[in-house]
Amino acid sequence: MVTPIDPTGTGFLFAENRNMPMHVGGLQLFQKPEGAGRGYVREMFEQMSDVEEIAPLFLKRPYRSVRTAGQWVWEPDEQFDIEHHVRHSALPKPGRIRELLDLCGRLHSTRLARERPLWEAHVIEGLRDGRVAMYTKTHHALVDGVSAMRLLASVLSTDPDERGMPAPWAAQPGGRKPRREAAPELSDLPVQALRTALGITAEAAGMPGALVTTLSKGLRNETSALSLYAPRTILNQKITGSRRFAAQDWPVERLRAIGRATGTTVNDVVLAMCSGAMRAYLLELDALPDQTLVSMVPVGLNAKQSQVASAEGGNALGAVMVQLATDLTDPARRLAAIHRSMKDGKEALSSMTPMQILAMSAIGQAPAILTPILRMQGIVRPPYNLIISNVPGPRTTHYWNGAQLVGTYPLSIPINGMALNITCMSYDGNMAFGLTGCRRTVPHLQRLLTHLDDELGHLENAVGL
Amino acid sequence: MVTPIDPTGTGFLFAENRNMPMHVGGLQLFQKPEGAGRGYVREMFEQMSDVEEIAPLFLKRPYRSVRTAGQWVWEPDEQFDIEHHVRHSALPKPGRIRELLDLCGRLHSTRLARERPLWEAHVIEGLRDGRVAMYTKTHHALVDGVSAMRLLASVLSTDPDERGMPAPWAAQPGGRKPRREAAPELSDLPVQALRTALGITAEAAGMPGALVTTLSKGLRNETSALSLYAPRTILNQKITGSRRFAAQDWPVERLRAIGRATGTTVNDVVLAMCSGAMRAYLLELDALPDQTLVSMVPVGLNAKQSQVASAEGGNALGAVMVQLATDLTDPARRLAAIHRSMKDGKEALSSMTPMQILAMSAIGQAPAILTPILRMQGIVRPPYNLIISNVPGPRTTHYWNGAQLVGTYPLSIPINGMALNITCMSYDGNMAFGLTGCRRTVPHLQRLLTHLDDELGHLENAVGL
Repeated sequence: MVTPIDPTGTGFLFAENRNMPMHVGGLQLFQKPEGAGRGYVREMFEQMSDVEEIAPLFLKRPYRSVRTAGQWVWEPDEQFDIEHHVRHSALPKPGRIRELLDLCGRLHSTRLARERPLWEAHVIEGLRDGRVAMYTKTHHALVDGVSAMRLLASVLSTDPDERGMPAPWAAQPGGRKPRREAAPELSDLPVQALRTALGITAEAAGMPGALVTTLSKGLRNETSALSLYAPRTILNQKITGSRRFAAQDWPVERLRAIGRATGTTVNDVVLAMCSGAMRAYLLELDALPDQTLVSMVPVGLNAKQSQVASAEGGNALGAVMVQLATDLTDPARRLAAIHRSMKDGKEALSSMTPMQILAMSAIGQAPAILTPILRMQGIVRPPYNLIISNVPGPRTTHYWNGAQLVGTYPLSIPINGMALNITCMSYDGNMAFGLTGCRRTVPHLQRLLTHLDDELGHLENAVGL
Repeated sequence: MVTPIDPTGTGFLFAENRNMPMHVGGLQLFQKPEGAGRGYVREMFEQMSDVEEIAPLFLKRPYRSVRTAGQWVWEPDEQFDIEHHVRHSALPKPGRIRELLDLCGRLHSTRLARERPLWEAHVIEGLRDGRVAMYTKTHHALVDGVSAMRLLASVLSTDPDERGMPAPWAAQPGGRKPRREAAPELSDLPVQALRTALGITAEAAGMPGALVTTLSKGLRNETSALSLYAPRTILNQKITGSRRFAAQDWPVERLRAIGRATGTTVNDVVLAMCSGAMRAYLLELDALPDQTLVSMVPVGLNAKQSQVASAEGGNALGAVMVQLATDLTDPARRLAAIHRSMKDGKEALSSMTPMQILAMSAIGQAPAILTPILRMQGIVRPPYNLIISNVPGPRTTHYWNGAQLVGTYPLSIPINGMALNITCMSYDGNMAFGLTGCRRTVPHLQRLLTHLDDELGHLENAVGL
């Protein structure tokens, strides 16, 4: 069955080029089940490949021709070849996380083939600690990043003894329903609803006329939540097609303790860690601007606020422009400043007009599509310096056929003018940071992990923990 | 220093798209030196990466802008990043040749980044037999396939005890001179001359006007060497961007014995193996045409013939269209028919006009560029079904810092209408076959290896060996 691709999806297909692949990724780490033999990874790979029927989402490919009047449509891939999509890879010795991140960076740098369904998964062996990794890549035209990770997680179970579980791309009898055993937060959205948070952008991307003018007015009409006066930094340049990826996690409890001691939220502490790390990183490169960096931070909107957004209600996203206070030297003062900026932003959001919320949500959801449009409207300074998202993940331990999911890290999409993306995801008591950057524009990306770790320590010291 | 890219190189840059990456590849297998420790592959990788100065060929990237008047030029990459170009990879267990060929097929499917010098090299560990593999990828705009492999081989030595040898991409004091120790056939061409065989095509690609009309006339003016009546086959379709690679070698002595017994050449036997293998493969797929397949086979031209070709003399290539006799069931009769077709073709070549030779050389060297031009001229049937090249390599054993080169296999460029390429290269007593195909258009490519092996046996039986 041929179905039209929605305007947002089409926007991502059009926006994509050699230097800006438009796919999101996920890195998952699994602990082998007890008693797993030497051939365990191959078995896992074979289970992932041996799928009787592929779910429709993973079977459709984009297509356009004269017969579709030049419009992009989805059509099932009649020559679907699972071997192309599910791959077995390995790390060179010594098989540290470093080698894994290198491989993920490389895999994330190549574009998905458009003549096939827009996804790939790599089962990766060779970690010296015996864990198994899985890197997945899904085109943004198909699903957004958070949804992609939720989708993969939706086949997991909280029961370590459950077996016979399907691959994430397998069609499930009776459709993809929330698993009875799974924690409700994993799968509370049906697949089709996963895209609704983006629905708002569909309108914006679909009509670069009157609406965009209004959007741009909304953006110019500054509030404390929305500054268009972010300083220029090395992050806000043209990018290349090659990526670096860095990832690490820290116990949420450490962040929560800082929050408790200072009256701030875990999310504030995440932003403060990023702020301190960016400050140290840019100082090392002698590239710290005098003015504070501004981060776009997606936030949830409540039902009232989201009146213009999702028909589902409650799942809509807004965006707050948070001043990261990178001009301050003291970690505790930075955290306090971030807390205030976030609070101001959220308050401003609640007093904003639907059109302003629309504008911010749009630019938050699809900067790759909207940034060029804004430029046409004469807005040339970066609206913000980087995106920092923090997404709640499952709170309990999950398993796939007995293999424990021990970590899950998002890979996102750098775009021209926005060379670094930080996405955090909590899972099972840990806060995972995934940093995706342009390899050339963001040098020594891995150093940010050390800076994040240092900054967490500095914050603890500063608040007397 | 900025230098213009010659018309052929520019042609390859323009002809390239998502489905037709225009790079050639090489797979080399090394035996570790005696006494190599556990960390040997990493040491090798580090030696390959630790290069003080990069040779100009490996440092230049393509560039065009208003300041170059839209022309493609080469310019040095000021931000050269060796880590991007030299990579360490590994095979999943069990580390058979099958896993290696899989990885090479994947690596060969992704395009080189144009904002950087157009090459990559992967040092690959994890072969269960303990050998080390190296896959290299070089853009055709930079160098042709055979030259790329010669270039890589040019740093090797015949002395197993020699150490301190540079990486192939290292600048060498006093320029890249033939190594005293190396067999002369390895490095008898300076780097700049490596492109001269393509010089002839430069003219053709550069002027699609009068010359191409003449070319097309030359092609229409059939000789026994040049049939434009190749049958349609599954190989002559539009291709996708994803590749499969298959490779294996057989002792040249086995081929030579068949040649001796039948009065044919080693090259005839190579073609007969390919013919029998293609016949069996297409029969299995129920896709064997009634008419014989036609292969384009590049041949060397002597000085007199090459008057129109290379100014260097003696290095020019012509092309013969060989009827592979896939319509015959008997292996010995097929070999005899191929021998006759090749002989006729070579004789025809010697009686051809310079323009006809030019036409065939051009289409042999750059089908990706010329095929669309021919189509514009109304020549729509495939001029041939596939390309089979057979390139002499070094005859003696070579080493890199004590690691013995035990096999070397070329990866080539499938294009629309020509989904399979077979390139053979002899080295150290073996004849290596490298088969590069479109993953979708040429299904089960690996089966051709079994068919090649079977056919060699059939030929031996047929001639009583």
